[in-house]
Amino acid sequence: MMKLLLLPGDGIGPEVLAEVRRVIDTLNAHHGLGLNVENGDIGGASLDRHGTPLAPHVLEMAKASDAVLMGAVGGPKWQSVSYELRPEQGLLNLRKGLGLYANLRPAFCFPALADASTLKRDVIDGLDILFVRELIGGVYFGEPRGIETLPDGTKRGFNTQSYTTPEIERVARTAFDLARQREGRVCSVEKANVMESGLLWRETVAALHAREYDDVALSHMYADNCAMQLVRDPRQFDVILTDNLFGDILSDAAAMLTGSLGMLPSAALGEPGMPGLYEPIHGSAPDIAGKGIANPCAAILSLAMALRYQLRRPDLADLTEKAVSDVLDAGYRTGDLLGGEDTRLVGTEGMGRAITERL
Amino acid sequence: MMKLLLLPGDGIGPEVLAEVRRVIDTLNAHHGLGLNVENGDIGGASLDRHGTPLAPHVLEMAKASDAVLMGAVGGPKWQSVSYELRPEQGLLNLRKGLGLYANLRPAFCFPALADASTLKRDVIDGLDILFVRELIGGVYFGEPRGIETLPDGTKRGFNTQSYTTPEIERVARTAFDLARQREGRVCSVEKANVMESGLLWRETVAALHAREYDDVALSHMYADNCAMQLVRDPRQFDVILTDNLFGDILSDAAAMLTGSLGMLPSAALGEPGMPGLYEPIHGSAPDIAGKGIANPCAAILSLAMALRYQLRRPDLADLTEKAVSDVLDAGYRTGDLLGGEDTRLVGTEGMGRAITERL
Ligand SMILES: CC(C)[C@H](C(=O)O)[C@@H](O)C(=O)O
Ligand SMILES: CC(C)[C@H](C(=O)O)[C@@H](O)C(=O)O
Repeated sequence: MMKLLLLPGDGIGPEVLAEVRRVIDTLNAHHGLGLNVENGDIGGASLDRHGTPLAPHVLEMAKASDAVLMGAVGGPKWQSVSYELRPEQGLLNLRKGLGLYANLRPAFCFPALADASTLKRDVIDGLDILFVRELIGGVYFGEPRGIETLPDGTKRGFNTQSYTTPEIERVARTAFDLARQREGRVCSVEKANVMESGLLWRETVAALHAREYDDVALSHMYADNCAMQLVRDPRQFDVILTDNLFGDILSDAAAMLTGSLGMLPSAALGEPGMPGLYEPIHGSAPDIAGKGIANPCAAILSLAMALRYQLRRPDLADLTEKAVSDVLDAGYRTGDLLGGEDTRLVGTEGMGRAITERL
Repeated sequence: MMKLLLLPGDGIGPEVLAEVRRVIDTLNAHHGLGLNVENGDIGGASLDRHGTPLAPHVLEMAKASDAVLMGAVGGPKWQSVSYELRPEQGLLNLRKGLGLYANLRPAFCFPALADASTLKRDVIDGLDILFVRELIGGVYFGEPRGIETLPDGTKRGFNTQSYTTPEIERVARTAFDLARQREGRVCSVEKANVMESGLLWRETVAALHAREYDDVALSHMYADNCAMQLVRDPRQFDVILTDNLFGDILSDAAAMLTGSLGMLPSAALGEPGMPGLYEPIHGSAPDIAGKGIANPCAAILSLAMALRYQLRRPDLADLTEKAVSDVLDAGYRTGDLLGGEDTRLVGTEGMGRAITERL
């Protein structure tokens, strides 16, 4: 029996995962999914209960699962806890602990929602970008790091951006492999013009491409230009390969372009055999937490990614994705999605039920 | 007599600075500007001529000027020169050499061009953001940095993100001071949730605010969220204060939002008494260089910023800005600006002449 670990976390996390649970129950009952679900704590919720944002036993549970699905972490409540205890640290430790080096973040546009975007429809219609973001290296994890007091009493905060050839190669492989299943184009993004780590990134990706992937079209772009091109003409991209920090920023911008932020799932993958971590792209949204109005679609679509990539039920992934898009076509909208004619405002549970009914 | 150093640089740089020259000649002849203009090399052009992207005598000329106006640097021709010799290095050395710690990058929307944006008109109409980007610290200049070979033969590329309290305070002051002349709101952007340097940034800005600027409204935002908010609702921002790397990426995204990229100037300022460096936000655009079709407006508006901030002729800054906007209203468009009804396509020189005629 396959095992899925649910980590609701903070803010709207528990609310949206309740709807994931509803979907799993239906798939278990009617489609023979046979998925065994466990629950664990992460982030601020874990800090409050266990005094740490990721308890060792939860990491062990994650390792013993086939996949992990997280809600969200963070919130103003934990703004002033010390650095190592921050909710975000729980997520970072989980990524690192499972060796999840490749973060897949699709940015696509649901036709029913194209008008919810702040961009003109003709710029984003049919948009379908896949970000492959390096997830356990770079400035997020580089040493040395810290805040030190200088002899004159002022302080200095520092972090290290660092990438080795093998770290770059393994995530580049993921990007090239996925591009082969798509349009066959990879755009690799860094600041090689001002950072040596970016220069090594560019050279390593180019060399790997020449050695093993010359059937894929490779281009290179500086991160600032990429930010501009995403706004100017996002459909020029197929797969965007980039580092941890640039990937964080650029994939969020791209997600917002689609007008479908509350709709977008993500997957973090490591070596074959390790469980992946699936999570919605949106954050914990403390401002709307507890109100029952959060959009559960991104979390439900994250489950679909898990069904496809790791739980060996691509058929149920398709089914779930179709249920979500049918519900949108039928006019169901949570508050984050711009309404329009013939749409119907529902809450978190209303959206979850509407999706489940179609399974 | 005031002295302005022109550094045309690479790509379209020389073409757009030729039109700046035309504007200066007119202001000298008809408005008593009395500006003395010198020329110098920078970037790839300097590398080709002097074997270095910024020759010491050019830095000396810059120091002896009242202001410096640059075109652009970089291009595929110098892609494979060694790191210290890259065209971009000339620009970085100039910024550092003049101590230009505060980079002012306005992102505003010319009413005549609102339809050229990929964003819906109602999202960007009246958009007016001022980025204050730290320019001589952070990962651009932090040590140690480099590419090393590890014992196992693989390589490691590394850079250091580093900020001290005084570095943060001086640029934050610029942001707060400028906010007082605008809507009085500063949003400070970092990744304090994953980087200690960002945490020190946040704490230092907050402390300075509490001590000296509590009449200004201060908010804090993570860089990934800022990228999203710029797409979702850019008009929520007044002044955005951020570091060198985030500022590079986010201000470029914001510039593209306006649909007026070829229109946007910037200023880099240091201590009082030091010359500032003024430059268009756009790059060297090697793909259109030499064709006489580049938009000279951003360069001409950079001159206007210099007239206002450093050359003590705010009246002529106003005049020049009005000439540019009149020309747009009259329908003149370079190829980068989406046409529309009643517009007239002109080249670099055509645009420059149209502006000069109105001075
Ligand atoms: C919560 C935070 C640590 C995280 C990150 O910066 O990676 C988030 O923004 C993300 O993109 O998953
Ligand atoms: C040319 C390059 C070094 C520069 C930078 O990254 O700062 C440019 O992108 C800019 O923003 O002025």
